[in-house]
Amino acid sequence: MYEVEVKVRADHDAVRDRLGDIGGERVGRVVQEDTYYDAPHRDFAATDEALRIRRERPADADDCEARVTYKGPLVDDASKTREEFETGVADGETMAAVLDGLGFDPAATVRKERERYAVGDYVVTLDAVDGLGEFVEVETETDEAGVDAAREGAFDLLDRLGLDPDEGIRTSYLGLLLG
Amino acid sequence: MYEVEVKVRADHDAVRDRLGDIGGERVGRVVQEDTYYDAPHRDFAATDEALRIRRERPADADDCEARVTYKGPLVDDASKTREEFETGVADGETMAAVLDGLGFDPAATVRKERERYAVGDYVVTLDAVDGLGEFVEVETETDEAGVDAAREGAFDLLDRLGLDPDEGIRTSYLGLLLG
Repeated sequence: MYEVEVKVRADHDAVRDRLGDIGGERVGRVVQEDTYYDAPHRDFAATDEALRIRRERPADADDCEARVTYKGPLVDDASKTREEFETGVADGETMAAVLDGLGFDPAATVRKERERYAVGDYVVTLDAVDGLGEFVEVETETDEAGVDAAREGAFDLLDRLGLDPDEGIRTSYLGLLLG
Repeated sequence: MYEVEVKVRADHDAVRDRLGDIGGERVGRVVQEDTYYDAPHRDFAATDEALRIRRERPADADDCEARVTYKGPLVDDASKTREEFETGVADGETMAAVLDGLGFDPAATVRKERERYAVGDYVVTLDAVDGLGEFVEVETETDEAGVDAAREGAFDLLDRLGLDPDEGIRTSYLGLLLG
């Protein structure tokens, strides 16, 4: 499974108006706190991999869910396409203790509020990131053969939202915070 | 949290009789399939650590649960006392893919049927291990200050089950299979 994702800086109020015009369906709003890890045996910044524990809760509730995610090296740089494996964990703190025992160190934390909309096969996410500001991400999932078509579709959707695909930001929020 | 655990070879029929005599309460029987991993940056055999994905199902049902476990180096060799962190994962196959991406390799699989009894604060487990035979484990959990008392209690319980604490096997099932 491949994730195709394009991200730009954008004013959320303007994008919400456009989403209304094109029939985007609001899915919900969540708060995410992501802890990214350094590996003891590889320089993830150099290999462009990532290991993360994500704690997520609905914006209006306290029940927290945790997931562990591994992102492999980039396959396609323009669309930030990569292999990704993610599964829920019963207890995020214990998963953190497992990674600590194995020698992985927490490197940085990214906290954001995410408001999600569904538009066809795509998810449009309005991210307000602590310390960075407002962004919009357009993403979808595909198999390897569908990567090119999925990327073109993402660029087209950005255009319909009044955003410029050429202003795509390839750097992750983590990278922007550390950069 | 520390796990104190003593294991001996034992005929299950004889131990079941003794468990009946001392009021052991049968908890249930499960099938466990454990995959142990080699680390890319450490020799777990040398450091005596372990990383494992366990898939477990009741002996009479198909619903499988998965957990990931890290076992730290031994603190007390006689009782196999060590720090351990374990949490449930929603999907064992995805967790395996995360570990594979990070460079951890599946090294060996241990399959066993475990029949558990509760005796006071202790759990007595009758293990039938594929390729190895029948064993009995006596274990409990304690904080660091309680390790000595917990180990003495485990030895006493083994004695009441007609088993000899001096025949304690310090080698894990994994080690016995590989040895």
